[in-house]
Amino acid sequence: MPENIGFIGLGNMGEPMAENLLAAGFPVRVYNRTSSKASALQTKGAVVATTAADAAMPGGIVFTMVSDDRALDELCGAQPSFVECLGRGGIHVSLSTIAPATSKRLAEQHRQHGVDYVDAPVFGRPEAAKAARLWICASGPSEARERIRPLLAAMGQKTFDFGEEVGTANVVKLCGNFMIASAVEAMGEAFTLAEKNGADPAALAEMLTGTLFACPIYQNYSKLIVGGKFEPAGFRMALGLKDVDLALQTASASEMPMPLASLLRDRFLASLAKGRKDFDWTAISLDVAENAGLRKAAAR
Amino acid sequence: MPENIGFIGLGNMGEPMAENLLAAGFPVRVYNRTSSKASALQTKGAVVATTAADAAMPGGIVFTMVSDDRALDELCGAQPSFVECLGRGGIHVSLSTIAPATSKRLAEQHRQHGVDYVDAPVFGRPEAAKAARLWICASGPSEARERIRPLLAAMGQKTFDFGEEVGTANVVKLCGNFMIASAVEAMGEAFTLAEKNGADPAALAEMLTGTLFACPIYQNYSKLIVGGKFEPAGFRMALGLKDVDLALQTASASEMPMPLASLLRDRFLASLAKGRKDFDWTAISLDVAENAGLRKAAAR
Amino acid sequence: MPENIGFIGLGNMGEPMAENLLAAGFPVRVYNRTSSKASALQTKGAVVATTAADAAMPGGIVFTMVSDDRALDELCGAQPSFVECLGRGGIHVSLSTIAPATSKRLAEQHRQHGVDYVDAPVFGRPEAAKAARLWICASGPSEARERIRPLLAAMGQKTFDFGEEVGTANVVKLCGNFMIASAVEAMGEAFTLAEKNGADPAALAEMLTGTLFACPIYQNYSKLIVGGKFEPAGFRMALGLKDVDLALQTASASEMPMPLASLLRDRFLASLAKGRKDFDWTAISLDVAENAGLRKAAAR
Amino acid sequence: MPENIGFIGLGNMGEPMAENLLAAGFPVRVYNRTSSKASALQTKGAVVATTAADAAMPGGIVFTMVSDDRALDELCGAQPSFVECLGRGGIHVSLSTIAPATSKRLAEQHRQHGVDYVDAPVFGRPEAAKAARLWICASGPSEARERIRPLLAAMGQKTFDFGEEVGTANVVKLCGNFMIASAVEAMGEAFTLAEKNGADPAALAEMLTGTLFACPIYQNYSKLIVGGKFEPAGFRMALGLKDVDLALQTASASEMPMPLASLLRDRFLASLAKGRKDFDWTAISLDVAENAGLRKAAAR
Repeated sequence: MPENIGFIGLGNMGEPMAENLLAAGFPVRVYNRTSSKASALQTKGAVVATTAADAAMPGGIVFTMVSDDRALDELCGAQPSFVECLGRGGIHVSLSTIAPATSKRLAEQHRQHGVDYVDAPVFGRPEAAKAARLWICASGPSEARERIRPLLAAMGQKTFDFGEEVGTANVVKLCGNFMIASAVEAMGEAFTLAEKNGADPAALAEMLTGTLFACPIYQNYSKLIVGGKFEPAGFRMALGLKDVDLALQTASASEMPMPLASLLRDRFLASLAKGRKDFDWTAISLDVAENAGLRKAAAR
Repeated sequence: MPENIGFIGLGNMGEPMAENLLAAGFPVRVYNRTSSKASALQTKGAVVATTAADAAMPGGIVFTMVSDDRALDELCGAQPSFVECLGRGGIHVSLSTIAPATSKRLAEQHRQHGVDYVDAPVFGRPEAAKAARLWICASGPSEARERIRPLLAAMGQKTFDFGEEVGTANVVKLCGNFMIASAVEAMGEAFTLAEKNGADPAALAEMLTGTLFACPIYQNYSKLIVGGKFEPAGFRMALGLKDVDLALQTASASEMPMPLASLLRDRFLASLAKGRKDFDWTAISLDVAENAGLRKAAAR
Repeated sequence: MPENIGFIGLGNMGEPMAENLLAAGFPVRVYNRTSSKASALQTKGAVVATTAADAAMPGGIVFTMVSDDRALDELCGAQPSFVECLGRGGIHVSLSTIAPATSKRLAEQHRQHGVDYVDAPVFGRPEAAKAARLWICASGPSEARERIRPLLAAMGQKTFDFGEEVGTANVVKLCGNFMIASAVEAMGEAFTLAEKNGADPAALAEMLTGTLFACPIYQNYSKLIVGGKFEPAGFRMALGLKDVDLALQTASASEMPMPLASLLRDRFLASLAKGRKDFDWTAISLDVAENAGLRKAAAR
Repeated sequence: MPENIGFIGLGNMGEPMAENLLAAGFPVRVYNRTSSKASALQTKGAVVATTAADAAMPGGIVFTMVSDDRALDELCGAQPSFVECLGRGGIHVSLSTIAPATSKRLAEQHRQHGVDYVDAPVFGRPEAAKAARLWICASGPSEARERIRPLLAAMGQKTFDFGEEVGTANVVKLCGNFMIASAVEAMGEAFTLAEKNGADPAALAEMLTGTLFACPIYQNYSKLIVGGKFEPAGFRMALGLKDVDLALQTASASEMPMPLASLLRDRFLASLAKGRKDFDWTAISLDVAENAGLRKAAAR
């Protein structure tokens, strides 16, 4: 029996992911707040739901990929909500980058409707989403994770299981994004130190990302930083702040300082203050350069 | 005509490097402050010099691999010094991790004796030195760099050229070590956040170092951090502080703040204060854990 | 015509403040969630209200002094709320340390009931409250501020006006508390530097607080820090974190980094992680000492 | 028997101090690297020494007030030096802000010539020096401190004794300057938070410096920060960096982190990078404002 699948949230990540589900032969009911995105998928076989609740079928599966905790809260709290429509035997797969605490709270609410909640945040930029090359982390009831496995496989290159406890995959996602932002800060400071001391940042980056740091994050992001081209954004500054804030809130709730995350938060805030809300988050390196007296900012 | 080669400083990096020169068929005069290390190399064909100056032959090449700027300054300022003994046509290849400013100053002094100075710091732990798998960065007069190329090739897997300006390779080395320490801090904070929120740090590390961060630094260091075994040290805490201090001094001299380097410096100092001078530098993650209320320290 | 006055929240600040209103001859209806505190004031002439709403009389004035934004939100959102009971011509004087944004939001809500909202946070510890020596900052509609002037005068030694814009006095309060916490951090680091270098912290403190820093904050707090006695708390660590968090949230909403506030937040979190939630907030100096290898912690 | 007094270093602090000694009736031999300053004092009764050594008389007392550790080292190491000229029974009173370690090292050297070393750094700006209103901290051999007491009394309003151990007063001075810089940072962040949230920084400053922070540092410096006039400098940015660097070096040598000092150091470096070397050190508040998106910088 084929699964009844809904997909809510067709942004630059959600749309290609839903498309990959369709391409893999799964029937998908799609919903987006602004409907044009949904229409585009119609030509590829999607059924366009008229409301979020309408994307859910009893006992089916709904994926959500929305901008933040509040958006997801509103979706789940709507009258009627897709969660109620899923009802007993349904699964909500939450792909968004949100706080673990939000997932735990929602999972509790879902249980009252007989719905399983799985947090399954993804790593990868829109290109990776299109190519079905995402890395997906999942936690939640094992039976539910088992059931959605083929669906995740249609959207990513690999799924990593993080156990039964809802919210654990969200923690992993926040750790990962924090580590990426940390790498950007480290490169920003290193490249500026190089530039101010006669070493070519591009040559430095090439050397390091071909050896010690020969991995996607350093290879891709060093190019963005050295190139100094921050628009259009692959991942917007404002989202970078959101994710580091989530890490800090999670740290705070569990009583621990994260001084490097605090530093990153301050960088993001300075970048917003300087009008770079829509720049790629690697543009925190501009702030490093400016505090070193380099007038890169003038160039854009 | 074979080169006359001297090698001064036979610590856990210098010794295997000198040995690799011998193994490649080069004659090497070796010198170490404590002579036992030198004797060991004698059986492998080295000539043991009785003084540092004695390691140098007129017009030859001398490698130095010593602990810090002061040690190198003392060597070069000795009466007589190996630099004077090298004399016109000689080359001093400085492998140590030191300040670019020290290299620039020494290069100036060397010039008075007709000696070329090349800074050629290396990336890699002792195992990599043994396996001749080091990555070597070199800057200085191009003719000199050309002449030492086969020698560097005997000690490393690849040499990266950073141009004519002495000290540039030193900058690169400081940038690299700063970036490594930054990665350790980022992992320390991320793994602690995971641990305090129910995610297994080992599983997190495995996921991230198999994907976004699939490179030597993250793969090797995450194991050390998660494993929590910091003795014996691969690279001692005190050396970590030294290197970050060099980066900060270089930044200061060129008028730029490096807030992440400042944070690292504070971590190293707290670690020294807690008695961890001889722990591996990845033990700054212990400080992260303790400030999160995790009593890992008790375990060692 | 005498004012109808209500006072909600009789904690270690609210109780003495209400008592001072009574002592000045004002009739006061008091309410506290746990009623024993209210009863104590009954003997001094207070009328004990049975609900928060019951503390308000039509067109009267209600003071609130509660623990945080959420507590105030709940009070104002109750069915029925004291705000509705105040109705047209009523004034709500909000004494709590809360976010300016909360005040702005509440003022908007109050307006629908014809109630004026004045934020009037206070500086001073419980002893100052008892002695009617508080410093009170007030902002809000000028007519309302004029009307409550004699009431504030009964509770404090001086009232500072910060204009018509609701929330401005809250900003001032957050700035002040941030500056106090900053002074504590500065003293903590300075005194530890002194101790580790042979200078007596008490003598240092005496010198500085008799000259450059001859003011209440430094004089009182240096004694607490040097004395190392952090229980019972004059102002609890958890409240320190709350206030710095409010400053940081306000900064974030207005797009600015506050790196010193970030540092303080990390100190408070480390202190909570180490089990010092109920210590006086000056105990962040213990964290300074521990990171310097001084085992002061053992003393308690 | 009147003392033979020498005074070396007639900058904007040393000159008025020497003048106060003369005004109090003490004979003073003065020396300055550039001689015009010395000549000015001649008309007030000073004997102008032709060399630093010439300022010293056997068994007499020499005050030094120079820019930094290196300058003092050079003076003391000159051939011949004023220290040798002082000889047995002489006292060197070192007024400069230098590292405690430098004082300890010099005291050791002085002992070989029978000269006592007293470190006696001062608090106060040039105006206070002119008015003989400095606060002076002294440590060193008690007999020597006793002997110089009337001389210090001629230059300051009060002398604070910090015991026998040379360098202790230097520690106190570094602690004090660090605390001042910390107060500037705290005010900078608080005033900017106020400005971005509708509170008038001048009103905020007036309120706080009339109450909680009613002391010279906050009263004087808040005016400078709010006024935004940073030239001419009362105390130059470059000197601020020097002093915080000394504190950090002293902390490092005694193995302790000072994260607030690290933050200050980064502020000073950013300020130098932005071309503010000769601004008053309170201009670090400009950097706070700029990172908050306030374009104050354009105004100067």
